[in-house]
Amino acid sequence: MPKPVPTQQLISDLLEGDRLALARAISRVEDDAAEAARIVRAVFAHTGRAHLIGVTGAPGTGKSTLVSALVESYRASGVTVGVLAVDPTSPFSGGALLGDRVRMTGHSGDAGVFIRSMATRRGTGGLAKASADAMLLLDAAGFDRILVETVGAGQAEIEIASVADTVVVVEAPGLGDEVQAIKAGLLEIADVFAVNKADRKGAARTVAALEMMLETGGAAAQTIFHHGQRMETGAATSETEAGDGWSIPVLETVAVSGGGVDELRDALERHRAWLGESGARTAREGRRLDHMLQTLVQAEFLARMERTLSPALRRDLVERMQRRETDPYSAAADSMKKLSP
Amino acid sequence: MPKPVPTQQLISDLLEGDRLALARAISRVEDDAAEAARIVRAVFAHTGRAHLIGVTGAPGTGKSTLVSALVESYRASGVTVGVLAVDPTSPFSGGALLGDRVRMTGHSGDAGVFIRSMATRRGTGGLAKASADAMLLLDAAGFDRILVETVGAGQAEIEIASVADTVVVVEAPGLGDEVQAIKAGLLEIADVFAVNKADRKGAARTVAALEMMLETGGAAAQTIFHHGQRMETGAATSETEAGDGWSIPVLETVAVSGGGVDELRDALERHRAWLGESGARTAREGRRLDHMLQTLVQAEFLARMERTLSPALRRDLVERMQRRETDPYSAAADSMKKLSP
Repeated sequence: MPKPVPTQQLISDLLEGDRLALARAISRVEDDAAEAARIVRAVFAHTGRAHLIGVTGAPGTGKSTLVSALVESYRASGVTVGVLAVDPTSPFSGGALLGDRVRMTGHSGDAGVFIRSMATRRGTGGLAKASADAMLLLDAAGFDRILVETVGAGQAEIEIASVADTVVVVEAPGLGDEVQAIKAGLLEIADVFAVNKADRKGAARTVAALEMMLETGGAAAQTIFHHGQRMETGAATSETEAGDGWSIPVLETVAVSGGGVDELRDALERHRAWLGESGARTAREGRRLDHMLQTLVQAEFLARMERTLSPALRRDLVERMQRRETDPYSAAADSMKKLSP
Repeated sequence: MPKPVPTQQLISDLLEGDRLALARAISRVEDDAAEAARIVRAVFAHTGRAHLIGVTGAPGTGKSTLVSALVESYRASGVTVGVLAVDPTSPFSGGALLGDRVRMTGHSGDAGVFIRSMATRRGTGGLAKASADAMLLLDAAGFDRILVETVGAGQAEIEIASVADTVVVVEAPGLGDEVQAIKAGLLEIADVFAVNKADRKGAARTVAALEMMLETGGAAAQTIFHHGQRMETGAATSETEAGDGWSIPVLETVAVSGGGVDELRDALERHRAWLGESGARTAREGRRLDHMLQTLVQAEFLARMERTLSPALRRDLVERMQRRETDPYSAAADSMKKLSP
């Protein structure tokens, strides 16, 4: 077996944009909490340049195909793109499936594209933490745009998408509901809507439903809720986000043929420009870092708890409770006194 | 406004079986962490006598009606019954809805029955903690049997049911799937199956599907998984549960007419006897208390985290991260150093 590359070497290679080093660094960050800390600390000063784009939507909307088409459009315009496909339902990560996908989408051999899937790992604090770490690594490795595609529709995946600079919510006609995102709780986080599969029957109705929601009663409420929610997750950030100045566009795309994809890219670039001019970019970065800080502190607390409440201590306390010599609250208080520092 | 009853008075009234004191104590335990600790500490020595029965199943199986019919059957046999209806989807707790239910089911005015609903509360650490506390209070107040009905089908509600001495999983024919509990992840926790609405078409098929699962291939695997899962949640308990000696019965009930309900009660009483003879009762109590201990320690850790990572500290750290003077991992480590004791 070859000797593993030393962390320092990995970090300097990554900062020079070495793809293999980047791939290895993401794996280490996923697998090993101490390595994650070491690597992210070393590269953090080199982050903050990339535009982070979250892409999310209900299953069946064609998110993955749309992400591939976006990558192609971005490459044609000359910018580099990193992709994180976050799939909590898959036990695979970074392996064969993604290899297939890279080949399939024709991006293989293009040094300006890096695609990586993140799946649930044993390990170091969950998908949200691993995804946040990986975004920073892609940023430090010099990618201009980072697309974070979340496949699931749980709270965790919504969270991952919602900490991006720009959030694209993907809809599609004919999936039962007129607007699936309502059900999935995705509307509040959208900066841009893409109605994909727009060549299908019902696309116009889906677009109309979204536009009506944005224009009428829903509109004001939606915007307030949108910014309200963002503010809640980022209570520590002093800047407020301009509620006006950005009107959420609803775009039609046909990802399989590339239809409307350049227009979607343009909308993302316009949002990027708006973020910079309005100060919202700084505010969103602040919220993202605040969120990451809280995630890390929580993980550390839970690790301490595991150490504090050892199996032996638990066994002893349970036996004493069963003899009614103590009670759950007193036992919990006793455990807390033994808290490891 | 009348002065609130002092905690000591409430506790001594509760221990004498005073229903109003019991109701008030449950409310205080739900609302106030400090009161919960005080009350549970005081009554814990008087617990351990009641038989705790979890009743769960997919929506539409008629769980609530079955619980009412069971209460009636138990009362006819002379034992007293406390009921906790745990509904995380309801914002109501202990109020009008339950009042209606008590009247409807004809148990009102019977001092041998106490029915209480538990819903999501602002407050002291979630439904699982509040339910565990309330079970102890009902036990201390002298109820012979405690039925814990969980209405939701999320992990939390499965958890609440699974820490009972005996778990009844309710099925019903004609709900789409042959056995809904498979989907809901409930099979592993069942000690007794009740196929309710057994007068409906398809009941025989549901019974057959369950029995086949218990008898064939599934059977061994199921039992192993069952006990495997229980052991996992109770790693600190040294006693092991006899895997044999109890064969899971599948019973037909028609709750609305009371059909099969006495037989279900008999099965529960047989399981109760088996728990005592096999030592499983002690093992399950150990797991339950271990689970409660962990829940309390976790709640305390999270509360400390809130205190440690104050908004002011977060704001300061986020600003330093944005200036790239620090990074998320170093900021998290700094926060941990400030950990309040």
